[in-house]
Amino acid sequence: MTEKTAATQPRRLSEITHWDMETDVAVIGFGGAGGCAAIEAADAGAEVIVFEVASAAGGSTALSSAEIYMGGSGGTRVQKASGFEDSTEAMFTYMMMCAGRLADEEKIRNYCENSAAHFDWLVGLGVPFKDSFHEERAMMCLTDDGLLYTGSENAWPFNEQATPAPRGHNLYVEGDNGGPLFMKIVGENVERRDNIRVEFEARALTLVADEHNRVHGLVVRINQQEMTVRARGGVVLCAGGFVMNEEMVNKYAPRLTEGSYALGNPGDTGSGILMGMGVGAAAINMQEGFITLPYYPPASMTYGLVINDKAQRIINEDVYHSRLGNAILRDNADRHYFVLTVEQYGDYESSSWMGAEVAATGETVEELEAELALPEGSLVATIDQYNHFAARGEDPFFHKSPDWLQVMKPPLVALDVTPGRGSYWPYFTLGGLDTLPTGEVLDPLRKTVPGLYAAGRTACGVVRSAEGYSSGMSIGDATFSGRLAGRSAARRAVSDNGATHAA
Amino acid sequence: MTEKTAATQPRRLSEITHWDMETDVAVIGFGGAGGCAAIEAADAGAEVIVFEVASAAGGSTALSSAEIYMGGSGGTRVQKASGFEDSTEAMFTYMMMCAGRLADEEKIRNYCENSAAHFDWLVGLGVPFKDSFHEERAMMCLTDDGLLYTGSENAWPFNEQATPAPRGHNLYVEGDNGGPLFMKIVGENVERRDNIRVEFEARALTLVADEHNRVHGLVVRINQQEMTVRARGGVVLCAGGFVMNEEMVNKYAPRLTEGSYALGNPGDTGSGILMGMGVGAAAINMQEGFITLPYYPPASMTYGLVINDKAQRIINEDVYHSRLGNAILRDNADRHYFVLTVEQYGDYESSSWMGAEVAATGETVEELEAELALPEGSLVATIDQYNHFAARGEDPFFHKSPDWLQVMKPPLVALDVTPGRGSYWPYFTLGGLDTLPTGEVLDPLRKTVPGLYAAGRTACGVVRSAEGYSSGMSIGDATFSGRLAGRSAARRAVSDNGATHAA
Repeated sequence: MTEKTAATQPRRLSEITHWDMETDVAVIGFGGAGGCAAIEAADAGAEVIVFEVASAAGGSTALSSAEIYMGGSGGTRVQKASGFEDSTEAMFTYMMMCAGRLADEEKIRNYCENSAAHFDWLVGLGVPFKDSFHEERAMMCLTDDGLLYTGSENAWPFNEQATPAPRGHNLYVEGDNGGPLFMKIVGENVERRDNIRVEFEARALTLVADEHNRVHGLVVRINQQEMTVRARGGVVLCAGGFVMNEEMVNKYAPRLTEGSYALGNPGDTGSGILMGMGVGAAAINMQEGFITLPYYPPASMTYGLVINDKAQRIINEDVYHSRLGNAILRDNADRHYFVLTVEQYGDYESSSWMGAEVAATGETVEELEAELALPEGSLVATIDQYNHFAARGEDPFFHKSPDWLQVMKPPLVALDVTPGRGSYWPYFTLGGLDTLPTGEVLDPLRKTVPGLYAAGRTACGVVRSAEGYSSGMSIGDATFSGRLAGRSAARRAVSDNGATHAA
Repeated sequence: MTEKTAATQPRRLSEITHWDMETDVAVIGFGGAGGCAAIEAADAGAEVIVFEVASAAGGSTALSSAEIYMGGSGGTRVQKASGFEDSTEAMFTYMMMCAGRLADEEKIRNYCENSAAHFDWLVGLGVPFKDSFHEERAMMCLTDDGLLYTGSENAWPFNEQATPAPRGHNLYVEGDNGGPLFMKIVGENVERRDNIRVEFEARALTLVADEHNRVHGLVVRINQQEMTVRARGGVVLCAGGFVMNEEMVNKYAPRLTEGSYALGNPGDTGSGILMGMGVGAAAINMQEGFITLPYYPPASMTYGLVINDKAQRIINEDVYHSRLGNAILRDNADRHYFVLTVEQYGDYESSSWMGAEVAATGETVEELEAELALPEGSLVATIDQYNHFAARGEDPFFHKSPDWLQVMKPPLVALDVTPGRGSYWPYFTLGGLDTLPTGEVLDPLRKTVPGLYAAGRTACGVVRSAEGYSSGMSIGDATFSGRLAGRSAARRAVSDNGATHAA
């Protein structure tokens, strides 16, 4: 086990001889979570310093599409304008199904109840959303439409239990440019506040804690100098996940090593999580991650069939892409293929960037079966059965929606989507510090670690698995949990220390 | 989150005003691990006290079949006498495949290299093994034979990479009575040693640790009195797993809630793990557990087919039962059935205790398919394909061994083996404190917690998942890791404290 997976020893308060800086709230990391934490803490009257290791704000939020998963309370402005009602209960049911046994019900409840208000808060910051609905099934929205389905809401079994509504909110900007725009707006909001100071190129080294692991501040390195920072209210860890720390991924989330591309920013080294663990915080859900085969666009891929090396289908192909990807990873087989008609393949070739290569083609099903070296008769039987029911608009096997059923007529093409054989499998981590909905960090006794808060990927939030992911849940969670953590730290500064920064 | 999942706060050394007892090594728990720890510590010259909450020795080992997974180094005496050579490398390869990505290579290497010597040590205690091989595929050995295959050694993919050898060692006793006999022998060995004292009905409440979390002893309750115990060398936690702590199972290993029967003794409340966590130890692999569908005996069940509600097979049915059970749990389906011919069903009815009920019968495959409400044509296709290849002695789908291939001729019977619908799904936990092979307990920084040792299910040992389990690995690991932990604690007593009990 290397150093890179070890918890970070805190600096002991008794060893600190002076403070180089003092503030109410110290935020580590200036991505979506850190930015929103700083804004909320400042607006609650606290003096804030944000320490960012990079030379600019952004974090993984800036690299993302910045879709934001929001709804409930009857609907956000965009949902209503687009003709969708969305009840808090439907959203809660859907998100609870997504998280399954790993759910933190209290956190999900709080998220759903306050989600529409979070939309309004973002709009208040100046984040623009167009009142329009994007009809096409897409992984991200390349138009400037404000709303789209970004999960498995319309797919079985979710659509049986939770009234579907689109909840992916997309910024009012053309192309996949939501992340940079979002962080630009957050950055401007931070700049506009006199009580927030930002230190870029500032590497947080460790927390400062007393012998009871109460957090009093941190040590940062700026210009090759170690500086001690007192944070009267507390430190808010918004330092991202650990997807860029290969040793941590190997140790905690080895399943993710099936992926081909670590999705995140170089700062996602787990440093925030390791600092938290160093003062006794509990890291939970560390084995889980988001890992996916982003097989659409084109949406028409959804008509295709995913089969394994026994010619068995494995899931309804109309679910969210990481749910399908997870089904591939869980399936007991060495190879997986996407089988398409020539028309479907034409769409794939012209617009997909999944990177899967053609494994075989067949003028007949028998020919494709032979080329793929599938057991004799196996693919013929699978396609026969699928077509038999598809012609009637049914999928008694996996309940794919009639909207996505097409009789599969040869010639057929099979793409190799086995992880490790060329297709694109991005991944990131979903484990982090255990927190209350307030952002307070918990130890294994479920007692709070005084003075320590966490948000975004450094915390374990509402999203718990690839199987139950929907686009927009990460930025939704990061921005929402950042706000709560910032507010909590600010309140502690005021109440515990009598800080006089209250407006 | 209830108290029952919270780490146990240690008693601080500074609060201890006197010691009611003093010893070199304190062992918490008198099952297989604790018994072997005590014997080794005593034989290394230490004074030992064993605290057992029950009124007799036994733990979960006494409730088990006490099969012990051993081999390597050319073979144990029983392996050799039965005509099997067993290389350390073959055993290592097999166990590494079993543990997969969760493997602790150092621990597995140490286990395999010393496994044959462990056999000799057990024989030295008086544990009897007959030099005979049990041919039949069995979950446990009901004869007094000394050796049998207890895992997936002969099944794909293991048999392709590791030369198979039977490594399940069964005590020389008729019936499923290995556990009581084993613990009787361990108990006699403990009694025979003057430097071991046993306190029954003694509940370990918490560890005593200084402010640096170095462990100095423990607090126990005996006769409703709290007693402080100083342990100069250290405390060895052998208090079992947490399968009886429902809250802990829900929190850490929710997948196990699919099971129908918690396998263990009432003391498996996780108390040892929680005490360790209370002094900063890391608990790892907590999400994993053993959960199984013990579908054999009769061995002839292996000829049957496990299918889901799409009539798909899911795995080679000749693997170890928990590997098959895990495949059911991972499979994306609501129902699973065991399909048998009438002859196979006859065997099942006469000798199985799996408890699965008949879901349907059919004079023809079509009839069975209809009765099970499987999609039209689906089961017919699956059976046709299986039979086509089985007639040739092949299973190109899942690589079931030719030994277990039989053409499935109607009439057929289907048993419902869906978890939660009547069949027997026992389970226990496989997570615990992180330890070195020496038994020293580690914190999240992978630094040892001085004075703390753990073994058996309180530690996370060589066995990491249901998918890669073989019978005998638990008792093998418990007894082997107990010995190492006991020896380590004894050595520390001698070296750190100048104890003069060395023989």
